[in-house]
Amino acid sequence: MSQQAKRVVLASRPVGEPKASDFRIEECAIPAAGEGEVLLRTIWLSLDPYMRGRMSDGPSYAAPVPIGGVMEGGTVSEVIASNNPGFAKGDIVLSRAGWQTHALSDGKGLNKIDPKLGSVSTAVGVLGMPGMTAYTGLLDIGKPQPGETVVVAAASGAVGSAVGQIARIKGARAIGIAGGKDKCDYVKNELGFDDCLDHRDPDLAAKLKEACPKGIDVYFENVGGAVFEAVFPLLNAFARMPVCGLIAEYNNFGETSPKWAGKMMRAVLTKRLTIRGFIVSDFAARHGDFLRDMSQWVREGKVKHKEFVTEGLDSAPAAFMGLLKGANFGKQLVRVGPDKA
Amino acid sequence: MSQQAKRVVLASRPVGEPKASDFRIEECAIPAAGEGEVLLRTIWLSLDPYMRGRMSDGPSYAAPVPIGGVMEGGTVSEVIASNNPGFAKGDIVLSRAGWQTHALSDGKGLNKIDPKLGSVSTAVGVLGMPGMTAYTGLLDIGKPQPGETVVVAAASGAVGSAVGQIARIKGARAIGIAGGKDKCDYVKNELGFDDCLDHRDPDLAAKLKEACPKGIDVYFENVGGAVFEAVFPLLNAFARMPVCGLIAEYNNFGETSPKWAGKMMRAVLTKRLTIRGFIVSDFAARHGDFLRDMSQWVREGKVKHKEFVTEGLDSAPAAFMGLLKGANFGKQLVRVGPDKA
Repeated sequence: MSQQAKRVVLASRPVGEPKASDFRIEECAIPAAGEGEVLLRTIWLSLDPYMRGRMSDGPSYAAPVPIGGVMEGGTVSEVIASNNPGFAKGDIVLSRAGWQTHALSDGKGLNKIDPKLGSVSTAVGVLGMPGMTAYTGLLDIGKPQPGETVVVAAASGAVGSAVGQIARIKGARAIGIAGGKDKCDYVKNELGFDDCLDHRDPDLAAKLKEACPKGIDVYFENVGGAVFEAVFPLLNAFARMPVCGLIAEYNNFGETSPKWAGKMMRAVLTKRLTIRGFIVSDFAARHGDFLRDMSQWVREGKVKHKEFVTEGLDSAPAAFMGLLKGANFGKQLVRVGPDKA
Repeated sequence: MSQQAKRVVLASRPVGEPKASDFRIEECAIPAAGEGEVLLRTIWLSLDPYMRGRMSDGPSYAAPVPIGGVMEGGTVSEVIASNNPGFAKGDIVLSRAGWQTHALSDGKGLNKIDPKLGSVSTAVGVLGMPGMTAYTGLLDIGKPQPGETVVVAAASGAVGSAVGQIARIKGARAIGIAGGKDKCDYVKNELGFDDCLDHRDPDLAAKLKEACPKGIDVYFENVGGAVFEAVFPLLNAFARMPVCGLIAEYNNFGETSPKWAGKMMRAVLTKRLTIRGFIVSDFAARHGDFLRDMSQWVREGKVKHKEFVTEGLDSAPAAFMGLLKGANFGKQLVRVGPDKA
């Protein structure tokens, strides 16, 4: 092989939007496969928004790419030399080879792709990580029910396009948000979403409200920013919000004073937090379990409790005002009448 | 009965903290039970933070108390006259009779309490709504695992005290937050929490970090405000945050520009939203389901997809910068090499 290998390395950590000088293209000799290794030739490199996170060294769920390191990324690659009994020359594999033309691998984490099943590029698209992000986030967290309204941004993209179509398969209404008329037309006419709105429209909030007359039951969050702010007030009671990305916020992740939503949602994403509001009547079906366990724990002395009692109905307003300030010490009760009349 | 009935009505909607003049105490004749009705005499009135929400007419999960209406509340009451075959004079019942000495009821929603089981006041405390709030929120949403760290504020209160003790029963560490030394001592020494911090301590954030050396896995949110802000940065990956109250925010719910956390958390609470961050590898166990369903949907044309391809590895940096701005139309791929070498 007379051809040289090429790779794209991280030259510097971007502040805000990445610029060309944050990357550097390097040439080097194509490496040789050592004992137990395979040599991979990249056919397809997948580019995905999460990569912006790897360029920064702030806290996240994954380590950053080091300065001078090859940019990370999923690839579809061909095995062009193999010293590993698990792989033969000519095998097509899904790999994390990164932004480079050639890579060595010890075979761990490589998954063979059957080219007979269709274009191998789908292994990093609709049948790969983006498709599975849509599938699991929507079905396992969003749980759309027939007739419910599902909203997803970046609706013509790899994840969003799958989210809306799966929502329709499950009998929900799918409303997309995308950038520009061409994408919106594609989402409505080709992908069959019920509607698609342009996030550049200054009336986005009003139009979204119109497109979701029964509110929003699932918001599949992958952008954040202005779209989040338009969606959030329209969420219905018991709405679910799977959060897999915040592309509109990524360039601000280094900022010290992000907007209120961005600050909190960044932690939700990177730490995969679950935040869930409830009132006790939502769990009415658990009342029997509660009474059984709690009365036993109280009897056994495992749960103790303290009462803070004021006397007479007239004391209720002052006691309540005190309660809001923490003046009570224990469960606040008002003794309104004697135990026996 | 020569005695008059008394009730506390809402005189005006408070702005910020409620004041005495927002309530009015009224006297009236004790009503007579009509056909099918029972007359109740209040023994215990429970005062709970959620009542602040009922005093305001902003959006919430429940209708506000009307001006001039009796303040809502749970009570332990005695049936003192009955024209309802389901209840006898002398029965003790759990009721929503509100802030008044006497009330009529058609029997719906009344639950008999067995006084032999202990103090009837526990029916509005540890064995009632506050206890069940702790039980369901902690076990059904928080899901504490042995060895995990659970933090709860208002830790000497009706809900918080139960949360920490149940957490300990389940093998977790329980860290309380309460106001003042007496409450903190009680929480540690009487209730057996592993530690309890004073929210008035200016070093709360630092002390909390010290008390939670392995971070926080469950934060049972019932106060909001400064405690929330101290807790939030310490949450571990996959932490759960059941949200049943925001007592520190209630007086600000009418504000037009609450702090970032308050604004979002208010909606989480009143709408009982679920917000959950994830990355696709969290659902690795679903990969087989995904491939089966998605490849079928793609074959059947139910899920369509579009690829947006740039040519050559050199194009990757510019393509990636475009992706972050939405310049791509479909799944962004870089063709690094030919399908066959």
